[in-house]
Amino acid sequence: MPRARSTQPSPTGPVRLSPAARAVLRPAAAAVADGFWHTRRQVNAHTSIPQGPGLLESAGNLHNLRLAAGAAEGEFQGAYPFVDTDVYKWLEAAAWQLAQGPSTELEADVDRIVSLVAAAQQPDGYLNTWFQLVKGGERYQDLRWGHELYCAGHLIQAAVAHHRATGRGELLDVARRFADHIDSVFGPPGSGKEIDGIDGHPEVETALVELYRETGERRYLDLAGYFVDRHGHGLLGGEAYCQDRVPLREATNVEGHAVRQLYLLAAAADLATETGDGELRAAAERLWHAMTTTKTHLTGGLGAHHDWEDFGDPYELPNERAYCETCAAIASVQWSWRMALLTGEARYGDLIERTLFNGFLAGVSLDGERWLYVNPLQVRDGHTDPGGDQSARRTRWFKCACCPPNVMRLLAGLEHYLATGDDDGLQIHQYVTGRYGAGPIAVRAETDYPWHGTIALTVEDTPADRPWTLSLRIPQWCREFRVRCGEVAYDQTDAPVTEGWLRTERTWAPGDQIVLELGLEPRLTAGDPRVDAVRGCAAIERGPLVYCLEQVDHPGGGLDDIVLDPSRPLAVKHRPDLLGGVTTVVAAGRRRDIPDAGWWPYRPAQPDEAPTDGESVELTAIPYYAWANRQDGAMRVWLPIS
Amino acid sequence: MPRARSTQPSPTGPVRLSPAARAVLRPAAAAVADGFWHTRRQVNAHTSIPQGPGLLESAGNLHNLRLAAGAAEGEFQGAYPFVDTDVYKWLEAAAWQLAQGPSTELEADVDRIVSLVAAAQQPDGYLNTWFQLVKGGERYQDLRWGHELYCAGHLIQAAVAHHRATGRGELLDVARRFADHIDSVFGPPGSGKEIDGIDGHPEVETALVELYRETGERRYLDLAGYFVDRHGHGLLGGEAYCQDRVPLREATNVEGHAVRQLYLLAAAADLATETGDGELRAAAERLWHAMTTTKTHLTGGLGAHHDWEDFGDPYELPNERAYCETCAAIASVQWSWRMALLTGEARYGDLIERTLFNGFLAGVSLDGERWLYVNPLQVRDGHTDPGGDQSARRTRWFKCACCPPNVMRLLAGLEHYLATGDDDGLQIHQYVTGRYGAGPIAVRAETDYPWHGTIALTVEDTPADRPWTLSLRIPQWCREFRVRCGEVAYDQTDAPVTEGWLRTERTWAPGDQIVLELGLEPRLTAGDPRVDAVRGCAAIERGPLVYCLEQVDHPGGGLDDIVLDPSRPLAVKHRPDLLGGVTTVVAAGRRRDIPDAGWWPYRPAQPDEAPTDGESVELTAIPYYAWANRQDGAMRVWLPIS
Repeated sequence: MPRARSTQPSPTGPVRLSPAARAVLRPAAAAVADGFWHTRRQVNAHTSIPQGPGLLESAGNLHNLRLAAGAAEGEFQGAYPFVDTDVYKWLEAAAWQLAQGPSTELEADVDRIVSLVAAAQQPDGYLNTWFQLVKGGERYQDLRWGHELYCAGHLIQAAVAHHRATGRGELLDVARRFADHIDSVFGPPGSGKEIDGIDGHPEVETALVELYRETGERRYLDLAGYFVDRHGHGLLGGEAYCQDRVPLREATNVEGHAVRQLYLLAAAADLATETGDGELRAAAERLWHAMTTTKTHLTGGLGAHHDWEDFGDPYELPNERAYCETCAAIASVQWSWRMALLTGEARYGDLIERTLFNGFLAGVSLDGERWLYVNPLQVRDGHTDPGGDQSARRTRWFKCACCPPNVMRLLAGLEHYLATGDDDGLQIHQYVTGRYGAGPIAVRAETDYPWHGTIALTVEDTPADRPWTLSLRIPQWCREFRVRCGEVAYDQTDAPVTEGWLRTERTWAPGDQIVLELGLEPRLTAGDPRVDAVRGCAAIERGPLVYCLEQVDHPGGGLDDIVLDPSRPLAVKHRPDLLGGVTTVVAAGRRRDIPDAGWWPYRPAQPDEAPTDGESVELTAIPYYAWANRQDGAMRVWLPIS
Repeated sequence: MPRARSTQPSPTGPVRLSPAARAVLRPAAAAVADGFWHTRRQVNAHTSIPQGPGLLESAGNLHNLRLAAGAAEGEFQGAYPFVDTDVYKWLEAAAWQLAQGPSTELEADVDRIVSLVAAAQQPDGYLNTWFQLVKGGERYQDLRWGHELYCAGHLIQAAVAHHRATGRGELLDVARRFADHIDSVFGPPGSGKEIDGIDGHPEVETALVELYRETGERRYLDLAGYFVDRHGHGLLGGEAYCQDRVPLREATNVEGHAVRQLYLLAAAADLATETGDGELRAAAERLWHAMTTTKTHLTGGLGAHHDWEDFGDPYELPNERAYCETCAAIASVQWSWRMALLTGEARYGDLIERTLFNGFLAGVSLDGERWLYVNPLQVRDGHTDPGGDQSARRTRWFKCACCPPNVMRLLAGLEHYLATGDDDGLQIHQYVTGRYGAGPIAVRAETDYPWHGTIALTVEDTPADRPWTLSLRIPQWCREFRVRCGEVAYDQTDAPVTEGWLRTERTWAPGDQIVLELGLEPRLTAGDPRVDAVRGCAAIERGPLVYCLEQVDHPGGGLDDIVLDPSRPLAVKHRPDLLGGVTTVVAAGRRRDIPDAGWWPYRPAQPDEAPTDGESVELTAIPYYAWANRQDGAMRVWLPIS
């Protein structure tokens, strides 16, 4: 049912639910005004996004579109059939950026590139420069690896963003033509369509749901549902990698290529939201739980295997070979956000927070100019870096440049993942200085989170005559907090928290304030005993931030000899000079004396042996997101404690 | 200098040193008569090797040779440019097998396949069915991936084996023609040769040394030296993978593709032996030490990375993703044997023993019909097997079938890696029932090793009038032993052991006996503290055998919940009924009670927390080599101890 009493503009971001959606929550309008994420978004707006067109020019992506449009001559550039998506993701980023305010230069870039995309489209709506130029127009012959529908998906997402953000329809027209073409070709047996098939890389599914939301055309939603449900029936050879081993509705854990799995699950959540499909919802909830309990790194990173960018087995969570693709972190945020809307549960915001501050944000350098495709939790002493896309050193751009524009689009649209509304009020999922509105309600948040734990929320707009509930997520990591609301004060022992939500219902007046103070004492974290990779280790965390040691802060030896003393207190030290201003955590440790065992590194186990002495050393831990911004060297998140 | 006083036949196996070689030791003649390895070799002789021609027929390898010979029509079969080597390795295995005794059937198979190889050779000596049939005869255009010289190397090795074992020259003629062709094409700048280049996969180097030994032609040795030294100069793009990042003489640790690295190092040892090149010897010794201390799994397995089959960083030794290719174990044995001859040191025999009994032997099933390409040290509960060559389940044959015939050739020639002689006497490196001879000396060994520790050595032939030294390797793992020789008895406290060798010098008479009793108490082993993957764990070992738990022996729960109690004694139980007869080790453990932590598997570290109670469980450990011979399921070598 449309919300008749709204005085706020609808949110312009991703996942604008249809009027008919069965979501528990709806995205709230939001504007980020200051603080941690504002700084990161400024770098995105002023460095990363503006540099996009130049990089897409150098890498040949725009050249390929010009070739397909007949507006240039030469060879196709790039090694992959999905290079067009770099352009589409950049367009999506630019669109969300334009939603925040006009920019003549950015608008000109967008207009120019949208025209190029439109010109490259074939008369019947098909568009993929690789297949048009390299494969002689041979379409849909290699659904497993061809990425044609994947490319269509990113085009559609970009077009929806462009339309929502600017009201302009040129790109949406291109996207609809392509979607209509796909709809005319693909369908189940008996539908009379030419191909009963799916794409080896999900993405078109959630894009089609968004296109349905933007246009109201139900057949896009149906097509998305068809694609989701045809996975797992052997159409692509039955491999887990491309999500074809088992139907989603029957799956018991996430598997295969991480980004493929997560985009498919985002679509499942979208479909459950839009259609009320309870079985799909149950599958998505089951798989989310299985993933978080058994296949998620501490950073929120996903995907344990380097080869095939795959999920590993349950509890297989290596540190030095963690893949944790930046795109997988982004896909995880997109999926969890849809789950939060669908269910109203706070835990999805917990994982989003952890992922944003750690596994996601590490993917871009502090200056917005260099990137990580993989996000390991450890770089060893003596590491020989392979270079290339999978390097553990930041790179200006990748041969497979999926991650950088993906980071850009998430950062540019980040305000849309922060708060929701329902008929009962407003829910704050993430603590970011800004303004959040749902219907007649508007609340301002001010905070220096995650450096400080105080979040002040001030009611700006409210219906005068009826109570509503302001819901604040108490983070899963938080052990101590206090909250004041007028005369009332609570702490973690007596606050009315249910399933992660601190709910305050009252008849509010403009200017009413609620102040939440989250305890940010640094803490040591251990893994599930089945996570072999972190046995006997602890990680330093503070608030939502995972910390790590870097070699550059620990001269005089390597990191692999260091042992953390868990009995000594952790100290917090804010360092405005360091890495753009970070709070470091200082811990006590020692360098192990490892006796020379000759040529064989294995020795009799001596469980009663006293801990080896060694030189004391002060450990300086920095937030994981800020690693690899100084000189190359070793890095560790998990530290041995004995 | 030729050994004028020899009354024994020269050993027929690999690495028959040239008269000019500067080796400290020379291979001894040997015949395996009974016991553990005899059984494995019987399976090899009666199942694996006889099935080879049929498998090479089904996989198309022989068909390709017939195509190249113009004796058949059809398409090339197989996906790799090195499929010919499966045939060559099988021929080498068959040749070593024929050296042990005649077999009409096997001889007929060998003759038939040798004729086929000869017929496929081109008039100028070139031979590679992939390039002849698929690449239109376009030679040496892709040295990085083409494997042309690698294929030549295996052909040469097979031909040397065929000649040494049977005295027949047909295959050696083919090999020499190919070697002469290569020598006419490849050479350093200024040599007037057409190509200054190396092969992306070393193998031809050590083969050319062997061809020099077999023919006395010095130019083959020089060509081998040229190839070894041209690695590391960027001829193949400078990548570590194909041993081109750094010259071997400057390298500080093993790196890149494990088999490539190890074959290259075997050639370096060969060259140092034949030429007295001290720098090359120093490099080989340095790299062996670096490899064993930082990059070797407990099983002797080598290569930490699944993608690229590479060595990892120092101390990066994962269990579930250990690659430990069967071929790398074989290459390691080949290299270490050459190092043992070159230096006379016992530690090389230590690593050979460990590798043979564990990382190598796991590569073939007990029935000799199924294989492992990768040899992980752990298969997790809930493992989703990817299938294909890299499966952790045994496979009948591989798409890339390098390992099975490689296992066959090592087993068939195993007697050549057991004992050596020098002017002072005989050295027993491995304890295998059989007869060992060097010059006028012959000794019989009888043992039920590794199940029992008693090894009885009886002098059968000896010069009557002069003393000589019988040297017995005291294994690196051995903490207690006793030795009796006539009236004299020692144990580990007073035995004359220097650097791993127990040396007994006397004037021997036929019938003199020395009895060594190696203590085989099962033991718990820990890793170097820097091996993160095994922190807080112990492995069960007994003698040279690494043990593991398999799911099938532990019903009632998974293996990843199990904790070993290191304070309780280990018990030995011989089980003649199990897995062809094995000694199991029974240990005390418990199943951990892991409290439900909700959806997030990480929790506050509580170092003072008491160990969690849990159900007691008797653990039955089997030798690692015998795993994966019953039903599929989890497996663990390293067991948590807290």
